[in-house]
Amino acid sequence: MQDTHISLAHGNGGRYMRELIEEIFARHLANPELDVHADAVPISVEGGEVLFTTDGFTVQPLEFPGGNIGSLAVHGTTNDLAVAGAIPKYLSLNAFIEEGLEIATLERIVKTLAETAAETGVKVVAGDTKVLRRGEGGGLYLATTGVGIRQGHVMSMQNIKDGDTIMVSGPVGDHGIAVMLAREEFGLRGDIQSDAASVLNLTTRALDHKGLRFMRDPTRGGIATVCTELQRATGFGVRLNEEFLPVREPVQSVCEMLGYDPMYLACEGRVVAIVDTDDAQALLATWQSLEEGKDAAIIGSIDSTIPYVLMETEIGGERIIEELEDDPLPRIC
Amino acid sequence: MQDTHISLAHGNGGRYMRELIEEIFARHLANPELDVHADAVPISVEGGEVLFTTDGFTVQPLEFPGGNIGSLAVHGTTNDLAVAGAIPKYLSLNAFIEEGLEIATLERIVKTLAETAAETGVKVVAGDTKVLRRGEGGGLYLATTGVGIRQGHVMSMQNIKDGDTIMVSGPVGDHGIAVMLAREEFGLRGDIQSDAASVLNLTTRALDHKGLRFMRDPTRGGIATVCTELQRATGFGVRLNEEFLPVREPVQSVCEMLGYDPMYLACEGRVVAIVDTDDAQALLATWQSLEEGKDAAIIGSIDSTIPYVLMETEIGGERIIEELEDDPLPRIC
Repeated sequence: MQDTHISLAHGNGGRYMRELIEEIFARHLANPELDVHADAVPISVEGGEVLFTTDGFTVQPLEFPGGNIGSLAVHGTTNDLAVAGAIPKYLSLNAFIEEGLEIATLERIVKTLAETAAETGVKVVAGDTKVLRRGEGGGLYLATTGVGIRQGHVMSMQNIKDGDTIMVSGPVGDHGIAVMLAREEFGLRGDIQSDAASVLNLTTRALDHKGLRFMRDPTRGGIATVCTELQRATGFGVRLNEEFLPVREPVQSVCEMLGYDPMYLACEGRVVAIVDTDDAQALLATWQSLEEGKDAAIIGSIDSTIPYVLMETEIGGERIIEELEDDPLPRIC
Repeated sequence: MQDTHISLAHGNGGRYMRELIEEIFARHLANPELDVHADAVPISVEGGEVLFTTDGFTVQPLEFPGGNIGSLAVHGTTNDLAVAGAIPKYLSLNAFIEEGLEIATLERIVKTLAETAAETGVKVVAGDTKVLRRGEGGGLYLATTGVGIRQGHVMSMQNIKDGDTIMVSGPVGDHGIAVMLAREEFGLRGDIQSDAASVLNLTTRALDHKGLRFMRDPTRGGIATVCTELQRATGFGVRLNEEFLPVREPVQSVCEMLGYDPMYLACEGRVVAIVDTDDAQALLATWQSLEEGKDAAIIGSIDSTIPYVLMETEIGGERIIEELEDDPLPRIC
């Protein structure tokens, strides 16, 4: 492509758009099923129940330590399939590109997206691009829809029983703080990397455990939101122990400086699992045996005697974890 | 909901977002498969090959005569499945909502989207919302991904043969001009309605004709873009006859006033079909027997003796239809 920046003509359906799609998107995403000239493409979904999910991405800045909006879009959508018990197979990709975006930036992002898709074993087989007028776009927004095939047993919040154990696969809040620091809004710097990663290995191995009731990835709204959703859906309370919640030291420091609660920070490569307590130590050992689960921890339990989410603090007190109201960190995904 | 306008808190994963999703999206889109609390939902795709497609929508203004961005999103994506020979079954929906959008406007759009989905026989089963900062959004962008099941025979541009007939299911350019007039940029007014509509009935009936080679909906870039794509993919030229191209009189008038070429204007409820000439009159009769195809017309033929798209003009001349370069009407879909 001769252009260095996106213009409105790249969205008009004509030559410029064709060149953008062929030279940036199709070139990096190339796979046999991707036909950029077709209205719709056939996909192969033999062998199990089909699961379907979608996500939009508006993270600012577009690139941050540990990833960019492209890897985030793949991880976000494939992780939703993974925690639902599926193997991700196909993605569609919508790109809303702002006029004026540097094409080199777009290409870096699409390249990362393509590499992430390949690593995760998922194929981008359908796509669309639209160009937004300058000042209307934030550079780039992505939307990805995923199709996967169920593996293992069907999980549901409805399977959760009083006394079940809650665990998390690794430290929380890295993604939220990494993106916040990348904005350089507070004059803070740090070398915190986003935890954005595929959780497919964690979820696949967890499904071997018959006692596994339910999994969710704690993205927007963090662990707190997963727990308040659990409480609302099951009617059972949730009792957490702050002492056991894994939070990296630099994340904890930034939280203390700025008054953030790690419980509400987004993760993009973690899994929360609810498991029969008889199977909890086994699942913990399974996760800890994996590189991506080596810091997994049991953080609490389902407790029908309380009608809310309760955190036992490290100094021996208790506080109620409320549903998120005002988000201190918007646009981290 | 107590709020009248969208705020950033409606995108944060907490209470405001839950209320927005429950009271606006889930309420209107309600169907048994839509589980707004699930990470991914099972879909049923028995009975044939699965087809997959996606589209983004950025039309301005959000509401126009004959539709709004919600109905457009459903028609745009389900029509891509229809022209590929599928029956649309499921949609995912991503909404990028600008801070400050009136919630009443959002609700009208979601309601129309839900009604259009119901009319088209498609279920919205997965969704996500993100809120964009004020000034960054254009009010609302949508992305929809569709899943359908193939019906009838497999079509392909590769099936197209020299001498095949090209027809269109109705007048062209209504959508482009209706949206342009709704912007009131040129001080022009008119009562032109968008042609945005489902083409499923047209495509299903067309698939009964063994001579049908290929179908496409002439959206961004119009009939001209369909024809230049045909020429590029097949290597055969395309010969069109301006006299037979159906264009409504008010659309023609606006085009003459502003110097637009109806060949490049977007339609959102039309089908271009390439058909074996032996079967052309039969397909024309089939389409003309339908309300949505009553103005269908044969507009040209595949001609291997020319290496471009040629238009025979009404005054007896000829002009070459080039690939679209600069779009006079951006953001009409």
